[in-house]
Amino acid sequence: MNIPLGYSFSVVESAIKKAGRKDLALIVSDRDAIASAMFTTNSVKAAPVIICKKKIKNGFGKAIVVNSGNANACTGKQGIEDTMFISKNIAKMLNTKTDLVYVCSTGVIGTPLPMDKINNKLPELISNLGLCTLEDVAEAIMTTDTFKKITSDSIQIDNRKVTISAVCKGAGMICPNMATMLAFVITDANISKKALDKALNIAVNKSFNRISVDGDMSTNDTIITFANGLSGNRKIETKGEDFDIFCNKLTEICLSLAKMIVRDGEGATKFITINMNGARNDKDARRASLSVANSPLVKTAIYGNDANWGRFLAAIGHSGAMIVLDRVKIEINGVIIVNKGQATGKDIEAQNIMKQSKDIDITIDLGLSSHKYEFYTCDLTEDYVKINADYRT
Amino acid sequence: MNIPLGYSFSVVESAIKKAGRKDLALIVSDRDAIASAMFTTNSVKAAPVIICKKKIKNGFGKAIVVNSGNANACTGKQGIEDTMFISKNIAKMLNTKTDLVYVCSTGVIGTPLPMDKINNKLPELISNLGLCTLEDVAEAIMTTDTFKKITSDSIQIDNRKVTISAVCKGAGMICPNMATMLAFVITDANISKKALDKALNIAVNKSFNRISVDGDMSTNDTIITFANGLSGNRKIETKGEDFDIFCNKLTEICLSLAKMIVRDGEGATKFITINMNGARNDKDARRASLSVANSPLVKTAIYGNDANWGRFLAAIGHSGAMIVLDRVKIEINGVIIVNKGQATGKDIEAQNIMKQSKDIDITIDLGLSSHKYEFYTCDLTEDYVKINADYRT
Repeated sequence: MNIPLGYSFSVVESAIKKAGRKDLALIVSDRDAIASAMFTTNSVKAAPVIICKKKIKNGFGKAIVVNSGNANACTGKQGIEDTMFISKNIAKMLNTKTDLVYVCSTGVIGTPLPMDKINNKLPELISNLGLCTLEDVAEAIMTTDTFKKITSDSIQIDNRKVTISAVCKGAGMICPNMATMLAFVITDANISKKALDKALNIAVNKSFNRISVDGDMSTNDTIITFANGLSGNRKIETKGEDFDIFCNKLTEICLSLAKMIVRDGEGATKFITINMNGARNDKDARRASLSVANSPLVKTAIYGNDANWGRFLAAIGHSGAMIVLDRVKIEINGVIIVNKGQATGKDIEAQNIMKQSKDIDITIDLGLSSHKYEFYTCDLTEDYVKINADYRT
Repeated sequence: MNIPLGYSFSVVESAIKKAGRKDLALIVSDRDAIASAMFTTNSVKAAPVIICKKKIKNGFGKAIVVNSGNANACTGKQGIEDTMFISKNIAKMLNTKTDLVYVCSTGVIGTPLPMDKINNKLPELISNLGLCTLEDVAEAIMTTDTFKKITSDSIQIDNRKVTISAVCKGAGMICPNMATMLAFVITDANISKKALDKALNIAVNKSFNRISVDGDMSTNDTIITFANGLSGNRKIETKGEDFDIFCNKLTEICLSLAKMIVRDGEGATKFITINMNGARNDKDARRASLSVANSPLVKTAIYGNDANWGRFLAAIGHSGAMIVLDRVKIEINGVIIVNKGQATGKDIEAQNIMKQSKDIDITIDLGLSSHKYEFYTCDLTEDYVKINADYRT
């Protein structure tokens, strides 16, 4: 796998939730990097989110520390102090400023971090640097994820090879703005702070803000991007071909990770794409697609390979989006099941295709105008219930 | 069971979805009754809803015909014609006006009514009148319901005994405005149209609009109330003690039915009451309680007897309601698990009580002001998924 120049990685086991797996990870850029980030809009924010939001204002970053197994959310003053303590300690060992060290957490809410366990392992986390890979980081940040989420690609800018690599975690508590997740993007691109902010914003709105597993938004959602400039390309600014190439690749990488989250949705057996077309306006297109995507009745029907389009219509009907029934057309994996608001009688045909498909494409044309929105979700299964009923036990 | 004066009932089997159960019901008032109704706010409305909404403008009613097994929703012109046909035929046989006959449907969406089967049974439906009970009606209107929902009580107004009886159905696709359900309330009260409208509005907002099973709103929600005046009390107007007595009893009856719907929520094992107190304003109290009630993560945690209050806070945090974490207090069945935004360490105690309780009371005090809201929901279980994955098969 291509990895951008000038980054090293480390993971250790600190047995935060339980023993037997690496659960503490570190990403370090050789050189202070331009940094950009986006965070959950949930008004209940975890301590690490509160601290990272302050630090990102500097615009620079050197290191990212991540623990899984404990979200350090709803942990009061203690939570803030614990986050600060970890970043201070890591900064000291890396001989850098505290402000350049970002600490992130994911896992159970409401339990203080087991600081003794973590502190004991910080020296090993530093000494392992360079002995581990980005794949190791991807694995260490998993919680209910069943596979690690990592992707990487290179582009040519100014005749230099620029690489963007990214890891993320997330499987439940997934809803737009943002999906419940942590994501870390590293690149060796030489880019201005403004351009990186702009590109990240575009990329996230086309990827992590278009997925949903269960409609629940987390307290810890964070995406942090480092660009250390070591590829030596002429600086990418907010406009022009260089920016477009970079921004498109960043979007592609984020979308690839976002889709992995949906594919790994807790208990999911189907990856569902909702194409909402022909809406009266952009807002309608978005809310209609979200309403279909988040409907438990739609999600269970798809799990049961049932082309139950009445539930799609009911979901659109209570979304607030304008709907004129006799203009509506609905396709599932290419089979038209509703035309002009009425059944075509092809439910069985659609169901047979659904049975053979892990990827379900629902294309709805509201027939009102040309506004559209694409959104990704998964089905709702007994396993989702099991995973979340037993999460803390 | 007390039944108001001057009503008769009938049920027959017309094998709409499958054979083996009564699925067509009729309620008739001896005398034309004052009629009041409320309907789904889903913009996708079933044919019977469209027709009933027109008829209710007359302010009177004589008969209600209900079929289960088919919702006659998303059935286009045919659906409208079928509903009209049934009401015309019943009106002719009852020697009354078509406008006084209300037709309601519940069941699968998108399939035309099997009109041959229904028409063949209409004469029998008429000839059975008086041979059946309101309990029979309650049973005939069930779909995924596991028990019939019926209640009745009497009050004294003007030294006359006034009786209110009601039946309803609903177990899934339940969300406020209104819950997915059909409800029929009959009374022998002598009451003005305006007073009946007002009382029904108050009662529904305190009952059916405060329950949620899965957050999905149906295309068919309807509540119809008949008041035939046969108890002979002085006419109840929109104000005064008579109105209050009537309105309180009607509210009590509707709340009792609404709670039955939640208790019978598809796959539910727990009845959950959300008491949201101390909110900044009424809107916040309502949206915070709905967000907690509709969170799949909250609902699965309660199913797993897990006092996972972090999920409650996350749900409030993305509801849009104002939250100041260190003012929040959370109790489950009387055990304080969060105080001033922090864990009290009593999760295990709460969990032991949850294991022994089918009724879970979550009391959340946001500590901001005195606005509050009460809302009812149920847990999310594997059986909900099973029921809804297999519904049409």
